[in-house]
Amino acid sequence: MDTGRLSAFSDGVFAVAITLLVLDLRAPEDTAHLGRELLHLWPSYLAYTVSFLLIGLVWANHHTMFEHIRGLDRPLLFLNTLLLLDVVLLPFVTSVLARSLHDGDGLRIAVAVYGLTLVVGGLFFNAIWWWAGRGHRLMGDHITPAEVSAIGQRFRRGPALYAVGALIGLALPAAGLAFYAFLIVYYWLPSDRGRVAGTAS
Amino acid sequence: MDTGRLSAFSDGVFAVAITLLVLDLRAPEDTAHLGRELLHLWPSYLAYTVSFLLIGLVWANHHTMFEHIRGLDRPLLFLNTLLLLDVVLLPFVTSVLARSLHDGDGLRIAVAVYGLTLVVGGLFFNAIWWWAGRGHRLMGDHITPAEVSAIGQRFRRGPALYAVGALIGLALPAAGLAFYAFLIVYYWLPSDRGRVAGTAS
Amino acid sequence: MDTGRLSAFSDGVFAVAITLLVLDLRAPEDTAHLGRELLHLWPSYLAYTVSFLLIGLVWANHHTMFEHIRGLDRPLLFLNTLLLLDVVLLPFVTSVLARSLHDGDGLRIAVAVYGLTLVVGGLFFNAIWWWAGRGHRLMGDHITPAEVSAIGQRFRRGPALYAVGALIGLALPAAGLAFYAFLIVYYWLPSDRGRVAGTAS
Amino acid sequence: MDTGRLSAFSDGVFAVAITLLVLDLRAPEDTAHLGRELLHLWPSYLAYTVSFLLIGLVWANHHTMFEHIRGLDRPLLFLNTLLLLDVVLLPFVTSVLARSLHDGDGLRIAVAVYGLTLVVGGLFFNAIWWWAGRGHRLMGDHITPAEVSAIGQRFRRGPALYAVGALIGLALPAAGLAFYAFLIVYYWLPSDRGRVAGTAS
Repeated sequence: MDTGRLSAFSDGVFAVAITLLVLDLRAPEDTAHLGRELLHLWPSYLAYTVSFLLIGLVWANHHTMFEHIRGLDRPLLFLNTLLLLDVVLLPFVTSVLARSLHDGDGLRIAVAVYGLTLVVGGLFFNAIWWWAGRGHRLMGDHITPAEVSAIGQRFRRGPALYAVGALIGLALPAAGLAFYAFLIVYYWLPSDRGRVAGTAS
Repeated sequence: MDTGRLSAFSDGVFAVAITLLVLDLRAPEDTAHLGRELLHLWPSYLAYTVSFLLIGLVWANHHTMFEHIRGLDRPLLFLNTLLLLDVVLLPFVTSVLARSLHDGDGLRIAVAVYGLTLVVGGLFFNAIWWWAGRGHRLMGDHITPAEVSAIGQRFRRGPALYAVGALIGLALPAAGLAFYAFLIVYYWLPSDRGRVAGTAS
Repeated sequence: MDTGRLSAFSDGVFAVAITLLVLDLRAPEDTAHLGRELLHLWPSYLAYTVSFLLIGLVWANHHTMFEHIRGLDRPLLFLNTLLLLDVVLLPFVTSVLARSLHDGDGLRIAVAVYGLTLVVGGLFFNAIWWWAGRGHRLMGDHITPAEVSAIGQRFRRGPALYAVGALIGLALPAAGLAFYAFLIVYYWLPSDRGRVAGTAS
Repeated sequence: MDTGRLSAFSDGVFAVAITLLVLDLRAPEDTAHLGRELLHLWPSYLAYTVSFLLIGLVWANHHTMFEHIRGLDRPLLFLNTLLLLDVVLLPFVTSVLARSLHDGDGLRIAVAVYGLTLVVGGLFFNAIWWWAGRGHRLMGDHITPAEVSAIGQRFRRGPALYAVGALIGLALPAAGLAFYAFLIVYYWLPSDRGRVAGTAS
């Protein structure tokens, strides 16, 4: 199996997961006050937007990663499956977050759980890179071990930053959420190759 | 990353979003009067058909666009993600529209919100074209800057027309909806290359 | 745009539509009598199986068709979108059929609506073939106009047979359903090239 | 039609089915006790994880299988459709299992039904291999009949082991479930080529 197949399957999972986010947006039952009811859904729009941009980002980084990884073995497939398992949870934790924002209740836990999902995803992302880079076994010839190591160092920042967000969220939920939104927009912004590559998960 | 990857991922999102439209069609609970109950769902059939043809059209235009765009950078990926974020909202606003049509209530707002989603999608569509065309940086060699500019001029009509529909809808909801249906069928009809390319989102 | 892109998008829609069939299977709420409750879902299993084999068949025939069609134009894209619009309705009419079978009510209408969806799909299928074959414009060089015409003749049987099933269903619902099941299994069976190609939608 | 098309369609179905697993995870309604409510969902997390790793495994094995199979005929398409029909049932039986675990009721039946789905999938998996290997008709030239036969022997273990799990589950549900979890992790672990190939569905 070449990495093209792995990418195609992963792309499919990313595409479905990012689209399922919309299922948390339900048409209001009360159409007599449709405008007001639609505005009341703002937490769902917010959570939808953050998670959509996030999954889009993870997809983009996944592709960047598999431009460098050229070989496949069983553990790599397994680690990739674990990463996808985490990504597919995002519609769920997004829904939890939206409901919590809407009720104004349980927000500490909702933000922390959301952040935990990001941290775990970032760890699997790093594990894939680490496994593929061991002895340069699964890496392409166009990249040197020093470059692999440099990119890995930047990748490691990802889960650390997400963990900071989760901790902020436990104390100040809104600040934690704002921190995630900032991270995601920051990572999407155009920049030198270094920062792009540093977008761990 | 080449544009093939971007197209494949976008295709996946389009395919899932267009198929999720069917989830708004629910089997009637009352099977004793199944015929009557199925006929009562006509607003859902109407909204389903309009949105299905619309997403199919956006998909076709997206491909036309990426036959010309040959390079990728981070902002282009971001703009494409924003376009997809808007497209994936269509099953939601379609459901709002169907419910509003069914209840005969809130139709002004439902049609305007539907139109707003189209306008925003059209703006992102234009933004992608504009960004890729700046200095001809991301365009292929087979197209001249003059052609890029000519196509862009036609692309700009899309959001303007959709905005007209939203405004009509605020005054006369049924007329706004009919205007959208007309636009979509008009853009699908066979024609000279110019009109096809002019189908901005 | 080449036909590869059209096939890839259509494949995505087929894959999502066929998988959404499972959403009509809901875990029973009453786990105290789980075995009995699961058995009570037999109409859903039956409808799921028939529709799954049907969509799989349409997918296979769609590919056979696009092995011969090598060119694309706007009307062909439009006709293909209409075919997909019909295919994506299948999870809905399958759900209607399952509920009707479960309630033992409205079965005439449910079978006829199911059959109507197949007839309409078959008509779009034929329309694609007819459009692509006019003057041999969109056909590949490996197939002769005579072969196109011969295949088209066989394709035309599909909607006719499905219409027969719908009419049978209006009189004797169970017989209509059995007729559909027979048609689908018959078309799947290995056979000479002729019968395979004759599987219009 | 070449096997690439079949793989692409199957990949799409696998990707959708694996992602639909998340739909069984619903945000708790009671956000006032969000932490407790989220913990109460542990049966859903467990079932989600087992089924996600399982579908990922079937996907990986499906690709391994179609690296060797190079030809296609109608019966092979049909058998593959039956395999997918079974795989797509997994979100349903997973949901049944999660609900049963949550209620602490009906677990014997839930584990047995889950196991039965795996057994049937394994049988279709073996049927594909058997059909493609008959007279080496659909196999590639890079593999010898002896190798096909050796892999087939290992493939046959799959449904047998899953049947053992189902029988254990009928007597001791928790032990049956643990047996499945063990099997899935065991098959994912890195190993000699033999064990990997032996992962029948």
